Amino acid sequence: MTTSKVQIIEKIFNANDQLAANNRQLLDDKKIFAINMMASPGAGKTSLILKTIQLLAPRVRIGVIEGDTAPVTIDADKVIAAGMPAVQINTGGDCHLDAAMMRDGIAQLPLDDIDLLIVENVGNLICPAGFNLGTHSNVVIASVPEGDDKPYKYPNIYRGIDVLILNKMDLIPYIDFRQDYFSQGIRIQNPKAEIIQVSCRTGEGVQSWCDWLSAKVNQVKG
Amino acid sequence: MTTSKVQIIEKIFNANDQLAANNRQLLDDKKIFAINMMASPGAGKTSLILKTIQLLAPRVRIGVIEGDTAPVTIDADKVIAAGMPAVQINTGGDCHLDAAMMRDGIAQLPLDDIDLLIVENVGNLICPAGFNLGTHSNVVIASVPEGDDKPYKYPNIYRGIDVLILNKMDLIPYIDFRQDYFSQGIRIQNPKAEIIQVSCRTGEGVQSWCDWLSAKVNQVKG
Repeated sequence: MTTSKVQIIEKIFNANDQLAANNRQLLDDKKIFAINMMASPGAGKTSLILKTIQLLAPRVRIGVIEGDTAPVTIDADKVIAAGMPAVQINTGGDCHLDAAMMRDGIAQLPLDDIDLLIVENVGNLICPAGFNLGTHSNVVIASVPEGDDKPYKYPNIYRGIDVLILNKMDLIPYIDFRQDYFSQGIRIQNPKAEIIQVSCRTGEGVQSWCDWLSAKVNQVKG
Repeated sequence: MTTSKVQIIEKIFNANDQLAANNRQLLDDKKIFAINMMASPGAGKTSLILKTIQLLAPRVRIGVIEGDTAPVTIDADKVIAAGMPAVQINTGGDCHLDAAMMRDGIAQLPLDDIDLLIVENVGNLICPAGFNLGTHSNVVIASVPEGDDKPYKYPNIYRGIDVLILNKMDLIPYIDFRQDYFSQGIRIQNPKAEIIQVSCRTGEGVQSWCDWLSAKVNQVKG
């Protein structure tokens, strides 16, 4: 029984990784830099995407895939209102995006007119970590009110990321949040991840994040 | 293929429900009122448990099961420091508790000395909704900084709950949070759930929550 179960899981992961490799190839062919943005519900994924559009568009042409568990288009509507192409993927209750959903999302976007693809994963600090989408970088958004102990309690999500955004820095005066303890928790899981402190409300730090993104987009454009 | 997959899932759910029924029977035999507390990471589950202990113990004898994805005992340690029996369940990376984990947790608690069992589920607004533990009530903690659109985007978790706690009310002055829009979203999913506004930081509203709990505990004691 146990052996059989392991084999099945292995098969699913291999299929996902195969589709992820196809996605990556297509993105590379189109010279698009793509990120998989993961976070708890309400950490500020959509807010950061909107701020990023404000700072980078139209110099950088941005496309967005919005993952949601329910058939509501709240986030995708905001991106489209900001003038960018967006596709909503309804997971039908599932707790993460996978490479097949990503493939279907990419197919609906005008790839020749996109330099940067931002994939907003389902709000979840656990499950999305297990599914490669074919993006070039993983990014996690943490937020001050979530508390400084999250890297210790949800370690897997931080392991494969290039950037950790710490959002809602404007709330620091009202919340007991030990920045050293938090950063140390990230470093234990991932010594190399860049930590960028931002406030989507005030705009603080968003330029640093956009500088990181711009450099990556330029690298891919060559 | 599809039919086979559905059958397997059905089998797992039936096994979980069977174990949940056993858990419920044991709790009823011991006259223990039990709640399944669910929330996003960092919404304030552990903080509310600690405040509840402050207000209700030793009049109400409280036991706690802490669900965590990682083998860290941060939350369980806090409960034990508050003088209450606590068991930590490490899900080994899994995104929710199930009835088998709950059974193993109950087995380690001094059931004859407990009136109220609080099960702190893994921080996740999606997956825990699918797994009955055998508790008497489901409770979700939302928090102001998560945003007012969560009931629309993560609808399933609110459907089977008796109480919705809206925590971090002390942050209302610093955050754009439409209380009417939020409450309406809860009501669409669940017209009957009681909504209790609290701040674990200031203590506001925690007494109302404890009054609800006390009434339930007294009902079970008979």
